[in-house]
Amino acid sequence: MKKKTVNVVLDTNLFINPDCRFLFGKTPEEALNNFLELLSQAKGITCYMPPSIYEELIKFINEEKISDKFLLIDKKPPSKYELSVPAIFLYEFIEEMRGRINKGLRIAEKHSRKNLQDAGDQEKIKALRNEYRVALREGIIDSKEDFDLVLLAKELNAWLATSDNGLIKWAHKLGITCLSARELKTALDAHSAKKANT
Amino acid sequence: MKKKTVNVVLDTNLFINPDCRFLFGKTPEEALNNFLELLSQAKGITCYMPPSIYEELIKFINEEKISDKFLLIDKKPPSKYELSVPAIFLYEFIEEMRGRINKGLRIAEKHSRKNLQDAGDQEKIKALRNEYRVALREGIIDSKEDFDLVLLAKELNAWLATSDNGLIKWAHKLGITCLSARELKTALDAHSAKKANT
Repeated sequence: MKKKTVNVVLDTNLFINPDCRFLFGKTPEEALNNFLELLSQAKGITCYMPPSIYEELIKFINEEKISDKFLLIDKKPPSKYELSVPAIFLYEFIEEMRGRINKGLRIAEKHSRKNLQDAGDQEKIKALRNEYRVALREGIIDSKEDFDLVLLAKELNAWLATSDNGLIKWAHKLGITCLSARELKTALDAHSAKKANT
Repeated sequence: MKKKTVNVVLDTNLFINPDCRFLFGKTPEEALNNFLELLSQAKGITCYMPPSIYEELIKFINEEKISDKFLLIDKKPPSKYELSVPAIFLYEFIEEMRGRINKGLRIAEKHSRKNLQDAGDQEKIKALRNEYRVALREGIIDSKEDFDLVLLAKELNAWLATSDNGLIKWAHKLGITCLSARELKTALDAHSAKKANT
C-alpha cells in the first residue's frame, strides 16, 4: 500500500501539555524522546519546528537530555519577509483584538472597584491576572512563536500539530490542516516501517 | 506646469481633531464643507474614504449638513479578500500587541493595589481607563476602520491623509505615503484651478 508523504510542523505543547503528552510519555522529556523514536521508524513523514518554538521547548526540557534523533526534525524558520497573508486575516485579527482589549479594561475596572470595599490580598491580584489572561490571550495568536508555526505550515504546505485552540482557529482561516497529538501518533503509527513489515 | 495626478485616502480625524481641523474650519462641519469647496476647485486630486470611515464621520457631523460636494469623494471599500499583506507586518503587529497586553495587565494591577489603601472614587476609574487606553491603543492600528484606510491606500497606490500617529507608523511599514492635514491643504492649493488661473 502506497503511503502519502506528509510534512508536519510541530508545536511544543504536544510534549508539554499534560492533556496530550501522555500519549507519548509521562514527562516532557520522555514524551519528546519517545516521539523521536516513533518518528525514526516512520517513513514518509517529515517533521519541522521553527527555531523560536525550539527555544520554547528547551525551557521545559533540558537540551542535553534530548535524543540525537532530534536531528530528524528540521528547525526551519518561516520566510516571513517573502510570505504574505490575505488582508482579511489581519482585518479579523484586529477586530478580535479590539473586542478583547475592551474586555480587558472591564475586568481591570471590576477588580479595582471590588478592592475598594474589602481589604484585598495577593489572591485578588492572582484572580485579576487569571481572568485578564483568559480574556486577552486565549483563543488568539498571542506570540510571534505561534505565528511562526502558522507561517511555516503555510510555506511548506504542511500539517500543523498542536493542542492550542487559538492557533488551530487562526490556522484554519489560512487553510492549514491541524493535527491533535492523538492524530499525530496515529499518523506515525500508520507510517511506521515496523508495522509495514509485520 | 504639469501637475502630477494623485489619489488621496482621507481619515475622519482631519475634520474632527481640533489640532488639524482648524486649517479647514472652526467646527467639524465647517472644516469638512470648506475642504469639499477646496477639493471642487482642485484638479488632478481624487479623494477616497472607505465606508467604515464615513460611518465614523457622520457620528460627528450631521449627515444632512454635509455639502452635496461630498459626491466628489469616492466611498470605495478596500478589496480585503483579494489584497494581501507581507507576513512580517502581522508578525510585528503580534509582537507589539503582546507587549501592550502585558503593559495593560501591569496597569490594571497597579490600580487594583492602589485602591486597597485609600478609598477611591470615579476619578480613579477614569485614571485607569486613560492609562490603559494609551498603553494598549495608542500608536497601533486598533480598529478595522483604521485598517480599511491602510488597505485602501495600498490598493489604490494612494496617499493616506491622517493625523493618527499609529496609523502613520503602520502605513509606513507597507510603503504608504502619509499626508498631514497641512500637507493635504497645500496639495489642494497647489492643484487649485483658481490659483492656476491667477
